[in-house]
Amino acid sequence: MVKVVIVGAGLAGLSAARELQRAGDEVVVLEARDRVGGRVEGGVLAGHPIELGGTWIGEGHSEMYALVDELGLTTFPTHNEPGRLLVQLGRTRALVEGTKGAVPRLNPVALADLAQGMARFDRLARSVDPAQPWAHPKAKLLDGQTFETWIRRTLHTPGGRAYFRVATEALFSADAADLSLLHALFYAVSNVDLETLLAVDRGAQKDRVRGGSVQVAERMAAGLDVRLHAAVGLVEHDHRGVAVTTRGGDVTAADRAVIALPPTLAGRLRYDPVLPAWRDQLTQKLPAGTVAKTFAAYPTPFWREDGLNGQVAGDVGPVKVTFDISPPGGEVGILLGFVEGGDARRWQRLDEAERRRSVLECLVGYFGDRAATPLAYVEKDWSAEEFTRGCYGAHFAPGVWTGFGEALRPPVGHIHWAGAEYAVEWNGYMEGAVRSGRATALALREGGSAHPPM
Amino acid sequence: MVKVVIVGAGLAGLSAARELQRAGDEVVVLEARDRVGGRVEGGVLAGHPIELGGTWIGEGHSEMYALVDELGLTTFPTHNEPGRLLVQLGRTRALVEGTKGAVPRLNPVALADLAQGMARFDRLARSVDPAQPWAHPKAKLLDGQTFETWIRRTLHTPGGRAYFRVATEALFSADAADLSLLHALFYAVSNVDLETLLAVDRGAQKDRVRGGSVQVAERMAAGLDVRLHAAVGLVEHDHRGVAVTTRGGDVTAADRAVIALPPTLAGRLRYDPVLPAWRDQLTQKLPAGTVAKTFAAYPTPFWREDGLNGQVAGDVGPVKVTFDISPPGGEVGILLGFVEGGDARRWQRLDEAERRRSVLECLVGYFGDRAATPLAYVEKDWSAEEFTRGCYGAHFAPGVWTGFGEALRPPVGHIHWAGAEYAVEWNGYMEGAVRSGRATALALREGGSAHPPM
Repeated sequence: MVKVVIVGAGLAGLSAARELQRAGDEVVVLEARDRVGGRVEGGVLAGHPIELGGTWIGEGHSEMYALVDELGLTTFPTHNEPGRLLVQLGRTRALVEGTKGAVPRLNPVALADLAQGMARFDRLARSVDPAQPWAHPKAKLLDGQTFETWIRRTLHTPGGRAYFRVATEALFSADAADLSLLHALFYAVSNVDLETLLAVDRGAQKDRVRGGSVQVAERMAAGLDVRLHAAVGLVEHDHRGVAVTTRGGDVTAADRAVIALPPTLAGRLRYDPVLPAWRDQLTQKLPAGTVAKTFAAYPTPFWREDGLNGQVAGDVGPVKVTFDISPPGGEVGILLGFVEGGDARRWQRLDEAERRRSVLECLVGYFGDRAATPLAYVEKDWSAEEFTRGCYGAHFAPGVWTGFGEALRPPVGHIHWAGAEYAVEWNGYMEGAVRSGRATALALREGGSAHPPM
Repeated sequence: MVKVVIVGAGLAGLSAARELQRAGDEVVVLEARDRVGGRVEGGVLAGHPIELGGTWIGEGHSEMYALVDELGLTTFPTHNEPGRLLVQLGRTRALVEGTKGAVPRLNPVALADLAQGMARFDRLARSVDPAQPWAHPKAKLLDGQTFETWIRRTLHTPGGRAYFRVATEALFSADAADLSLLHALFYAVSNVDLETLLAVDRGAQKDRVRGGSVQVAERMAAGLDVRLHAAVGLVEHDHRGVAVTTRGGDVTAADRAVIALPPTLAGRLRYDPVLPAWRDQLTQKLPAGTVAKTFAAYPTPFWREDGLNGQVAGDVGPVKVTFDISPPGGEVGILLGFVEGGDARRWQRLDEAERRRSVLECLVGYFGDRAATPLAYVEKDWSAEEFTRGCYGAHFAPGVWTGFGEALRPPVGHIHWAGAEYAVEWNGYMEGAVRSGRATALALREGGSAHPPM
């Protein structure tokens, strides 16, 4: 039995804590905020629960489904009727049929271009081992270029390129120029493939938790020693153990620490002794994406009457991607609009009224005039949050996987790491966070001694 | 008259402090270390002063020359006889003549390739405005690709590509995959051109300060209120002013703050209220390079007898770039070997004896057996330093200049920024640090009100 202090009560930290506690370890979880969940947070709009952060459980997210079940929660399917996605690229507007909904029907030339691009991407992605992207025989080549460079070279129609770029923003909340090709491939294969990532039915946006995903975090926390308002400032460590000090001066001594924070924030803690160069510089190189979620509630999900399922992929911002997140009974209609990447950075600088106006303008463009007058509107800018500073997660610029990837997962002495960014499978999703937390707990129990202090 | 607290006693912070104090402001400089200079630091090897950090003053570095003069110091020329650079790419070894020494004479095909590559690069660089690289008409295109992608597309011979990659490592202590093409162009034009950056005579490595460059910092600090051992933890700010608190709990209230730290470290301070999203995310995206300096002293600069000037550009690490930094009288011979980028990250993980052995092996390869047995050897890994965490400076990955560049220089409310990374001219050099410090002081005096609190 050991004592473990866990920094961060997001899904990764809570999962690690539960796993360790079940195995008989003594666990304390320190959380900076006044709530648990991290990038999973509940809110209320027009009297109905909404997810301000992580929302969906997808096909294959087996740990999350099991957890939901174990915690006495249930899921319901994401609204996807009539199974058509509205694709709006420039002035071209198309309704896209299809069970998976990932490939839009544009003009035949653009469609052929897009189809060959997706096929080439997925073929290349299958050659990447998500446990060690840096080990790919052509890793240097794949990591030496941006995803944007690959898009320009591989796609030949404006429509095909635009669709890849919108998909990139939707998946990474970053622009295709921000990512290395190797990272885009890693992320796709970690989550099966590009189509699955983008899809609702049988895809990553398949189901939601009745009452809100935050309950998963809250119910996990219920059986744990979680201390809120405990922002950590200092992590002291040596061969005997760790001592973690909050900003308020409370010290928790333990045998091991798990830092379950996004990499940038992990890098901003003070360590004594300081982290080795390669690990510190890794945290300098894993910036978070820029994304705000905007929500508008209406008396009814009126877009369904027009044969629209509420899903959009557009290329004119600020809102380029939307989902219908109305409650399961459809008592009210709620649209979720994502504002991402460069659009988000321009939008952040507007005042509140301008932000709202620009979002509703987009919704009107997609769904008609009734979108102009919501019952209620709310927004959540994750990059403005002190204890997150960007969502959904970190992205790897060119050179980072090959130059620093090997330093990502190993502990430093008795300090371990967990979070959606560390997951081999379902990286970036709630599922990845849970799996990473458990994997870290397991590795910690199996012997920190396998990882000599560095 | 206002009161200004400056965080960081490197050349930028000290220059800002002097400028403000001269204008009648009250200035306090807080420095985390027990010394001033930041990335400029003095050392001693075999009884002679060496520069563990910033070393050279280059052609056009007018502020540094003036400062040296004003502070009662003198310079001496970097040893450059017989003006030949040893270029070793794979098994090809060539002695390169020429006043500037930047273009190696390889085989005629490689030379022609390299010449056209350098010409194309410089032509493109001249089209970039270093004050606002994001404003280039093709900024998105130039910033959407890595410098590595450009090298692969533009250079066609292994020798030509290798030379560009070695030059990149030497200039950025990062690999060509880590940088956007736009950043490489910006950096070149900020420092005149690529040839100037690489050159000794009439180039960026032209002169040194007799007795060591650190004296510039020390003499500037002599007339200022500099408080050592004052690592800052918290910066509180509002429309009235700032309050800066050290880790030890000392509070300095002032009208304005200048954070004169590398961007990553500026991002790791705690701000209350937190910085706006765009500024915080910028600091997540400006990682420092990886570089260690290694020094070996010999009874004489024996390589000069062999017709070598001590300068190497090779493509087999860990040491790929060397300089002769013997004292001006040549009383002893001292070689400086840079270990950079990916080489540095592999080398850092070796133990002390292995690191030394691998460095000396490189020097033997370049300069013969006499290099194997130095009188004294010392090394300085800047990425291991808590209060630097990487050198020479920050580099911009693809997408950063266009996505975040406009947030680089403007103050946030009453918090201003300074450092070599912020310089328009001579970015990355001691000259850039001094100019940035002065420019920030000037902007601060001319009215923070021009920049409303964000």
